Amino acid sequence: MTKAIVLCSGGVDSTTTLAIAKAEGYELYALSFDYGQRHRIELERAKAIAQFFGVKDHRIIQIDLRQLGGSAMTSDLPVPKDRSGAQMGHGIPVTYVPARNTIFLSFALAWAEVMGAEAIFIGVNVLDYSGYPDCRPEYIKAFERLAHLATKAGVEKKLRLKIKTPLIHMTKAQIIQKGHQLGVPFHLTHSCYDPTPEGKACGHCDSCILRKKGFEEAGLKDPIFHVA
Amino acid sequence: MTKAIVLCSGGVDSTTTLAIAKAEGYELYALSFDYGQRHRIELERAKAIAQFFGVKDHRIIQIDLRQLGGSAMTSDLPVPKDRSGAQMGHGIPVTYVPARNTIFLSFALAWAEVMGAEAIFIGVNVLDYSGYPDCRPEYIKAFERLAHLATKAGVEKKLRLKIKTPLIHMTKAQIIQKGHQLGVPFHLTHSCYDPTPEGKACGHCDSCILRKKGFEEAGLKDPIFHVA
Repeated sequence: MTKAIVLCSGGVDSTTTLAIAKAEGYELYALSFDYGQRHRIELERAKAIAQFFGVKDHRIIQIDLRQLGGSAMTSDLPVPKDRSGAQMGHGIPVTYVPARNTIFLSFALAWAEVMGAEAIFIGVNVLDYSGYPDCRPEYIKAFERLAHLATKAGVEKKLRLKIKTPLIHMTKAQIIQKGHQLGVPFHLTHSCYDPTPEGKACGHCDSCILRKKGFEEAGLKDPIFHVA
Repeated sequence: MTKAIVLCSGGVDSTTTLAIAKAEGYELYALSFDYGQRHRIELERAKAIAQFFGVKDHRIIQIDLRQLGGSAMTSDLPVPKDRSGAQMGHGIPVTYVPARNTIFLSFALAWAEVMGAEAIFIGVNVLDYSGYPDCRPEYIKAFERLAHLATKAGVEKKLRLKIKTPLIHMTKAQIIQKGHQLGVPFHLTHSCYDPTPEGKACGHCDSCILRKKGFEEAGLKDPIFHVA
């Protein structure tokens, strides 16, 4: 079986991505990060989701992005609430974590090289995405090119690792529909940037707003509870 | 003053790179990694070196590469000893750490973005380099391209971050001569992949052999003690 590393945050997008990788017949290796995020509940959800899909292995890498600062996700800066779609479409918000996807993909690349995996799956998308630069197709292409030059397998021409982004051109509603078709356990997923201490979704951050809108447009009921 | 992030391993190459960045007038931000390497003594040396050069800040990032395995540097695999230049020039050795420079540069990119640094310095070189894929100019170019696409500053066209590799085409002897001219404290540097518990250099790994040969060819005396 061909191996794939799948980045798993415990959210709707990465969980749907995991379901797609499974449907494509890959042997699954899930990778998550404990990076000092304020929404650490997502790691518990990622574990449950990895187990649900019967992944071959799930690693959680500890990295301290708080040491470098620069984001509302890893500091005490407030998470923006109740922004409209127009506001989200304008500029890069404070929830952006500098170079996060580059760091995550670098670790995935290391593990892919060690395991001989042929693909890395990442659930980025350009629509409904909150404006992060490292979610765009041109960024992903540049990382794939880097991966070919960075690795032993690439240099020895044994393997051309693919960075797979099956959701990249999908809306949140389309992602949710796709996940629904593939049996994604949405009740296990977590999206909120600023959950309550008990892990409940705030209902007002960009991520909650996009999730609510996505379920509505998909004509499906979200099984998780939003505070308001 | 223009800010630069400098990757500091405590070795001859990164220390000479730090001296060059200082000579070019940058305000220095040193970045080191505690990645489960068997030669952790290098972190103590990196601290002393950062202090010597009066860097503005020095961060040591903890990351556990042992969790991903695949290298003699982060596992119990034996470090190769007494290899000839021809052997070193042939293939990629077990001391290669998968995707290490990609991971290191990703963190440097995150810090550069937070600090508004204009350059990242890394002491890679293609000659006398033990055959690692992520030390080649084409790899560095690909990372620079990625950096422009990955960051807020790049997207907003405010900054084109440079990845600076002043040693890339230099021999070890040339690096040592350059370091000597710039007052590099070679007595503080550490190169060995497999030091004794007291931190003495083994004298037989690729890195010790390249260092010894470099000092000989540079016509200089190495102030550090090799076991044999």
